[in-house]
Amino acid sequence: MRWSEIGGVPCSVARALSVVGDRWVMLVLREAFLGTRRFEDFHERVGASRRVLAERLAGLVEDGVLARVRYSERPDRFEYRLTDKGRDLHTVLTALRVWGDRWMADDQGPPVTVVHRTCGAAMDPVMVCPDCRDEIDPRDLTAVVHRGPVRG
Amino acid sequence: MRWSEIGGVPCSVARALSVVGDRWVMLVLREAFLGTRRFEDFHERVGASRRVLAERLAGLVEDGVLARVRYSERPDRFEYRLTDKGRDLHTVLTALRVWGDRWMADDQGPPVTVVHRTCGAAMDPVMVCPDCRDEIDPRDLTAVVHRGPVRG
Repeated sequence: MRWSEIGGVPCSVARALSVVGDRWVMLVLREAFLGTRRFEDFHERVGASRRVLAERLAGLVEDGVLARVRYSERPDRFEYRLTDKGRDLHTVLTALRVWGDRWMADDQGPPVTVVHRTCGAAMDPVMVCPDCRDEIDPRDLTAVVHRGPVRG
Repeated sequence: MRWSEIGGVPCSVARALSVVGDRWVMLVLREAFLGTRRFEDFHERVGASRRVLAERLAGLVEDGVLARVRYSERPDRFEYRLTDKGRDLHTVLTALRVWGDRWMADDQGPPVTVVHRTCGAAMDPVMVCPDCRDEIDPRDLTAVVHRGPVRG
């Protein structure tokens, strides 16, 4: 199977990855969450070539994750803003960051601390069950598959 | 910058992506969380070629995400099991699945329901602040960067 076919597979993980299953895309999104909006700033902070960056930004606009918005008319200038669909990816970025902090940190410790402004805590978000509010242990989950043959 | 250099960048998102920033790797992990352990089963369920699959499995073993464990001696047979480091990626997979359900579903709805066995709820996990237990809105987070120049 090729990745171009994956959109038709009934698996929400695969479908999500058809949009964000690329490392440069994820770093572009990291920057967008940190407030970056302009091509030159993305270019400086992401580390991708201009060609790769332009291609990834265009893809994210096409997928509705970023919106390309004009902010100057003379000359024409555009910036890239997270849409609601894009902002909802914060859970994916957070999960990657927390796992990277825990399992891939060097001896200098985590490079970033995240503060929850509404309560003031320096913290790493945790995943809980919305019903009982207990923290999720993956061994306590059962996946009920409604359609085959590909799962997820 | 090339991806081979990214391990040295002080960004936990980038470091995590150096291990799991690949779509086939993510689908291998999806299967591992669903209980798949053997090469032939991964091959059938992931959709990657044998060459790609073998390469991704070897990489995940090298990175300590999967352990290659002998389960038969004559003939020699091995299976792949999630390590603690691998199991801790459940947050990443869950975040992708929930986002895919919400933003990429077709008209048949989510293909999988997840049940929290300890309380019986059919649910999607949510991310909360471990301190105040409120659900995270990314606009309420501030990232405090300890080292430059690359953020994350």
